[in-house]
Amino acid sequence: MAQKPTIPKGTRDFNAGEVAKRSYIIDTIKEQFKLFGFEPIETPSFENSDTLMGKYGDEGDRLIFKILNSGEYLKKLSNDDFESKSESVFTPKISEKALRYDLTVPFARYVVQHQNEIAFPFKRYQIQPVWRADRPQKGRFREFYQCDADVVGSTSLLQEVELIQLYDAVFSELKLEGVAIKINNRKILSGIAELIGAKDKLIDFTVALDKLDKIGEEKVKAEMRRKGIQEDGISKLEPLFNLTGNFSEQIDKLKSILTTSEIGLKGIEELEFINETISSIGIKTARLQLDVTLARGLNYYTGAIFEVSAPEGVKMGSIGGGGRYDDLTGIFGLNDVSGVGISFGLDRIYLVLEELNLFPEAIKETTKVIFISFGEQEALVSLQAVSKLRDCGVKAELYPDAVTSGKQMKKQMNYANKRNIPYVVLVGEEELKNESFALKNMVSGEQINMSLSALIEALS
Amino acid sequence: MAQKPTIPKGTRDFNAGEVAKRSYIIDTIKEQFKLFGFEPIETPSFENSDTLMGKYGDEGDRLIFKILNSGEYLKKLSNDDFESKSESVFTPKISEKALRYDLTVPFARYVVQHQNEIAFPFKRYQIQPVWRADRPQKGRFREFYQCDADVVGSTSLLQEVELIQLYDAVFSELKLEGVAIKINNRKILSGIAELIGAKDKLIDFTVALDKLDKIGEEKVKAEMRRKGIQEDGISKLEPLFNLTGNFSEQIDKLKSILTTSEIGLKGIEELEFINETISSIGIKTARLQLDVTLARGLNYYTGAIFEVSAPEGVKMGSIGGGGRYDDLTGIFGLNDVSGVGISFGLDRIYLVLEELNLFPEAIKETTKVIFISFGEQEALVSLQAVSKLRDCGVKAELYPDAVTSGKQMKKQMNYANKRNIPYVVLVGEEELKNESFALKNMVSGEQINMSLSALIEALS
Repeated sequence: MAQKPTIPKGTRDFNAGEVAKRSYIIDTIKEQFKLFGFEPIETPSFENSDTLMGKYGDEGDRLIFKILNSGEYLKKLSNDDFESKSESVFTPKISEKALRYDLTVPFARYVVQHQNEIAFPFKRYQIQPVWRADRPQKGRFREFYQCDADVVGSTSLLQEVELIQLYDAVFSELKLEGVAIKINNRKILSGIAELIGAKDKLIDFTVALDKLDKIGEEKVKAEMRRKGIQEDGISKLEPLFNLTGNFSEQIDKLKSILTTSEIGLKGIEELEFINETISSIGIKTARLQLDVTLARGLNYYTGAIFEVSAPEGVKMGSIGGGGRYDDLTGIFGLNDVSGVGISFGLDRIYLVLEELNLFPEAIKETTKVIFISFGEQEALVSLQAVSKLRDCGVKAELYPDAVTSGKQMKKQMNYANKRNIPYVVLVGEEELKNESFALKNMVSGEQINMSLSALIEALS
Repeated sequence: MAQKPTIPKGTRDFNAGEVAKRSYIIDTIKEQFKLFGFEPIETPSFENSDTLMGKYGDEGDRLIFKILNSGEYLKKLSNDDFESKSESVFTPKISEKALRYDLTVPFARYVVQHQNEIAFPFKRYQIQPVWRADRPQKGRFREFYQCDADVVGSTSLLQEVELIQLYDAVFSELKLEGVAIKINNRKILSGIAELIGAKDKLIDFTVALDKLDKIGEEKVKAEMRRKGIQEDGISKLEPLFNLTGNFSEQIDKLKSILTTSEIGLKGIEELEFINETISSIGIKTARLQLDVTLARGLNYYTGAIFEVSAPEGVKMGSIGGGGRYDDLTGIFGLNDVSGVGISFGLDRIYLVLEELNLFPEAIKETTKVIFISFGEQEALVSLQAVSKLRDCGVKAELYPDAVTSGKQMKKQMNYANKRNIPYVVLVGEEELKNESFALKNMVSGEQINMSLSALIEALS
């Protein structure tokens, strides 16, 4: 093989620096998940195809990675099947397993399968990779992590309140201050659709409304017209396009628009409760914003809808999202289990922290000290010192080859530099005789001879 | 769907308790990897089929999970291909990617692909799942984690020494004392094969020898005879079957047997150096043992071979293994990069710790305190207290529904018990009025009223 090997498109290798940064984000999220009482679960990377197929729409089904059956997988195909030459005939017969497409459907499967062992309300978090056969593009990968926290088995709006606090806590902990936690409610969207006589066109209506930020009022209206929403309905939307003021002011305006819609008013009531509770508990660094155009996977959500945007000035899509769904586990035969959950977008959060230079210096530190020795006996003494340092929690190592020439000396110092190791200890004949160690600071260049105990103290 | 959903055979769901125990082992291993100067990398779950196929023998190729191409994957098949009805014709045309079978081949691919960014010797660790279409059985899964540490780019035997120290450090940290780190050297096996005139039958010979523990001396000899090893050769093996004494005594005996084999003596010299260095540095709780019957994936290893057994009295296969390989990256076109590495068997270590009851109590603790409130106002005050506790690092939560009946009270207390939450705080009308909190110890049943600051102090 003359050519360098490659990896499949849309996948990534992560080096030590990247793993450290990703772990920093994941560990911060995990820590807050735990503080909020969420418990971890893990599910298999692949599920039975039955479990996943048909849960994400046709497009989703297409994007699910299917695993070829093992062994003589063609045996299940009849002559007619072979002649069909059709993927829709072949796929179910040659593939029975598929890679997880998200964490939500496997979670629903988990809840139903383990319902008798679970104490409800069940607060679970899950941080694992998912796979999608999407066309790779900037910031979109075929393998990526999802970080989800959900509560199932409680209809209390306090869950929504806590999830907003959780977003606030995580982003505050990451020093990413000023994120906007946008909130909407499916019931308000239903109310508006009712109001404008487009109850049967709820999806068309919300898909169009969702684009307001990107394409502007006129184009949104044009799309609604195209979808068959009547002109007098569209005119009733006017106040929505110009909702201004703070959360409660916007709520008041919505109330005056939706007076005749029972479901719309219910949605408003829910939002009011959430906003007031958050106000009285307080929020650290985020801002809670009402965004009546927010729709996100509407078919799925039945109450609150969340989305988090990076602080102003950072161009980035949403860095988190979620909402309440009233019948997640219904697809697996367990009805009436309401749930609400949020998700953190690891890859985008990574990019934002990188852009704002918010990764702490400390996470970049790998090995703290490397020993360079000038002979076999020196190596042995070095290894003993290295062991002692490790026992004291100092990340230490020994360059495995002894220095026998100036060229080698240079090579080993370069190695320490290339790996960003801040200290080097030199052990030569002199040090061996004096039972001492020459500690060199790689930044200042300063070099001091000291005893083992002084060395341990200096590096601990 | 009336039936409860299931997961594919050979895969597992992990609940919170299981995740905590697995994380405890993984975090302990990771901590020591870092102390020893190893840096993490991560590679994609699937690789190009080219990268994996042909690297693990025919049996390995069969056990690799292949991923079906997306879209119109049958288009690449000709009419003749369809008529062949043969998996060997179909597979390469309908599948171009495959799930990682181990971490070693992806690591070799990584080193070659990123050789210009890497500082050699490259000490990397990698802890990720791998997948094998093996027949599932007790303790053998289709998805499981591997935890590997390898150094490439150094031929120094000090690496072998450090890897033994690393095994010792990890198992000592896990309080799993008395594990046996068994060591052998491929060169000694080559020397013995030479000696008995079975140089061309090295594999047959070592496969038979490897079974000594399980089937005994006579059956091993019988197998060797069947494989065509001559009787006078087998008789020369006599001393091997009865190697006794400590490490150096066994080494001395081996020396006397292998006097005429240059490669055999080289192997002995290497083992001697490793044993003497370990003796002079010291070992914490493990025992280093010479095991001349140890072979493990012989085709692969070229020098040291390692295997770790659980402490005496625990019936379990090896809980770790590894060795030196002189040409790992050669398969991807980068020659002369020697490497040596070890692996930890997460699932088996888990079973051993479970059997010996070595998981620390502390890791079982999830939420420390749950608040139970008796009305909307009480819930709000509770939520404020919960937020303060979390800010102080206390895992705290609020039961989302207010208690309005004795039945509900019982339900919420049961919930706390079922989740092993050690403290409950009750907030009713009385407490609301007095700005106090009733802290109940769920083990002792003791209940004390206190202020918020006293509560924080009691639980922090």
